[in-house]
Amino acid sequence: MSNYKYTELLSFCEAVFLKIGCSATDAQCASRVLLSADLRGIDSHGVARLSGYIQLWKAKRINPQPTIRIVHETPSTATIDGDGGLGLIIAPEAMRIAMEKAAQVGTGWVSVRHSNHFGIAGYHAMLALEKDMIGIAMTNASPLVAPTHSLERLLGTNPIAVAIPAGEEPPFVVDFATTTAANGKLEILQRKGLEAPIGWIQDAEGNASTDPHALKKGGALLPLGGEQGSHKGYCLGALVDILSAVCSGANYGPWVPPFVSFLPLPENPVGQGIGHFIGAMRVDAFRLAHEFKTHMDNWIKRFRGAKAQPGKQVTIPGDFERVTEAERLENGIPLIEPVVKDLMTLASEMNVRWIG
Amino acid sequence: MSNYKYTELLSFCEAVFLKIGCSATDAQCASRVLLSADLRGIDSHGVARLSGYIQLWKAKRINPQPTIRIVHETPSTATIDGDGGLGLIIAPEAMRIAMEKAAQVGTGWVSVRHSNHFGIAGYHAMLALEKDMIGIAMTNASPLVAPTHSLERLLGTNPIAVAIPAGEEPPFVVDFATTTAANGKLEILQRKGLEAPIGWIQDAEGNASTDPHALKKGGALLPLGGEQGSHKGYCLGALVDILSAVCSGANYGPWVPPFVSFLPLPENPVGQGIGHFIGAMRVDAFRLAHEFKTHMDNWIKRFRGAKAQPGKQVTIPGDFERVTEAERLENGIPLIEPVVKDLMTLASEMNVRWIG
Repeated sequence: MSNYKYTELLSFCEAVFLKIGCSATDAQCASRVLLSADLRGIDSHGVARLSGYIQLWKAKRINPQPTIRIVHETPSTATIDGDGGLGLIIAPEAMRIAMEKAAQVGTGWVSVRHSNHFGIAGYHAMLALEKDMIGIAMTNASPLVAPTHSLERLLGTNPIAVAIPAGEEPPFVVDFATTTAANGKLEILQRKGLEAPIGWIQDAEGNASTDPHALKKGGALLPLGGEQGSHKGYCLGALVDILSAVCSGANYGPWVPPFVSFLPLPENPVGQGIGHFIGAMRVDAFRLAHEFKTHMDNWIKRFRGAKAQPGKQVTIPGDFERVTEAERLENGIPLIEPVVKDLMTLASEMNVRWIG
Repeated sequence: MSNYKYTELLSFCEAVFLKIGCSATDAQCASRVLLSADLRGIDSHGVARLSGYIQLWKAKRINPQPTIRIVHETPSTATIDGDGGLGLIIAPEAMRIAMEKAAQVGTGWVSVRHSNHFGIAGYHAMLALEKDMIGIAMTNASPLVAPTHSLERLLGTNPIAVAIPAGEEPPFVVDFATTTAANGKLEILQRKGLEAPIGWIQDAEGNASTDPHALKKGGALLPLGGEQGSHKGYCLGALVDILSAVCSGANYGPWVPPFVSFLPLPENPVGQGIGHFIGAMRVDAFRLAHEFKTHMDNWIKRFRGAKAQPGKQVTIPGDFERVTEAERLENGIPLIEPVVKDLMTLASEMNVRWIG
């Protein structure tokens, strides 16, 4: 494990995205989104995935110079076609449109088709904060999750992020997969040779499993709620799928294209690419902004100050990520050896200088 | 257990609501909302709660003749003050306003303050279906739930409902508490003398408990996700609280007034009454309505037809409630003896004729 400076990793990512034909603006945007995951401590979604995006580009599944366009709209909504581009740049553009609409009519909602993986949902939701808006971002994803009672994988980990501005307090930011555990957590157990807790996964017959490799043997991730309430996680994952893809004309359910280039695209697609759903609501569309912020501060203080279990604290969603970001901007981003090796191979393949 | 005709229970509820001073229109609306819970099999939220609402009226916590008014708005949003009325009539009015705004600008979003318990969230969300809109309804509620690591009860069971229209298929309707188990399920265990599964509740020290009476001893309901992911349920419950109350100016967190009249109102309220958040989105604000419906039908068929565990089926959210409603409209609504007794006492107190 070694630490790498944020700015150096940013330059490296930009150089790689430029090499595949992205514009300078797009290369910078994509790199920032990708590295925001590393900064915020969501290592599974950051620079470790860079070569995955490049493999998709090699397989001609990513268009580095997309023409993103609005194909349908009302004063508060739009559907955009991402033209097969990087989700990393399409989602911020969708949020820009949502915020523009919110500035005009109070809220803006953008459903996106023909996109690809967009990095961490939280990044896009947080873009709304600077304009005193509540930001919402969700996406569907490759099918790894079995709905309650299903033996088939029909849903992705379909995350939901919501960012809410406060006054003196830092913003409230939720960003979570609608499964009990994200796939990245399973990968960590695989590397460490540990068993998975009951409730994370099922085997090919639909039985609870502790084998972190169960997915490779026909198993599936389980929706949030585990045995006690997986139908609720299934509902949430389904909602994300429908808003992201049935609304926009993207692929949904088992037809969502895989993130990895070595798996074939599903046959008989029902739409184009993967889908996202992005929203922005002006807080002053509901009450005066300073009133909203004062009460949001009060909400945060009351919850953070709650009497807690011995040695524990009630945290506010976003606390961990904010602290991690400050620490990593200061001390660098820790990358494990396999990720560094992978990036060095990528650097050599793409003829881009590696760091140092 | 005896069965009662829907129309007879409806007339009875209407008579009771008229007696407390509701207008004929409001009495009819409130009764329909209340009984929709019984029809859909959510017995905890139906006519069994009628006397609870009347107790609140007796305690002067419900205004039977509210002036519901918009206090803030933009083309796609409104904040309404329910004037302390029944949530059962305020929420449908909020949805009417949301739908009117959606008709104009694509979507409509209404945050509600100074309201009371609104029955089942699903009823309000489903109002949007007849206009080919996606309906959303959520509400905060009396604090019974401990956020992750908290020993204090700071959130309600804060349900979320979303109704999505399809074409030939029945609509997709989710309606769920953001806890592992709704309080009503705990009450069933109490009556039957059974233990609660691990993950539903904690005791006063924050330890997992199987005692269905733990709430009376300082315990709390647990957020959806249980030990593996209660932080996600906490996030969801918090989102509902913030959208319903910080946006509108209602009470939030531990300040939400209790549903039962024998508990005192919290001191130093931070807003007025309880809060709801209601939304409507035209499906044709994103793509042609017939395209949306065709794909929604396809989504539903694919999921319902998924390969399932032996003897099980993948169901679509709303299936159970729809089947139950058809059956109960035909055969009547089953009421347990304690509920019937309670209603007969209410009938005599209010000088309203009981059924039969």
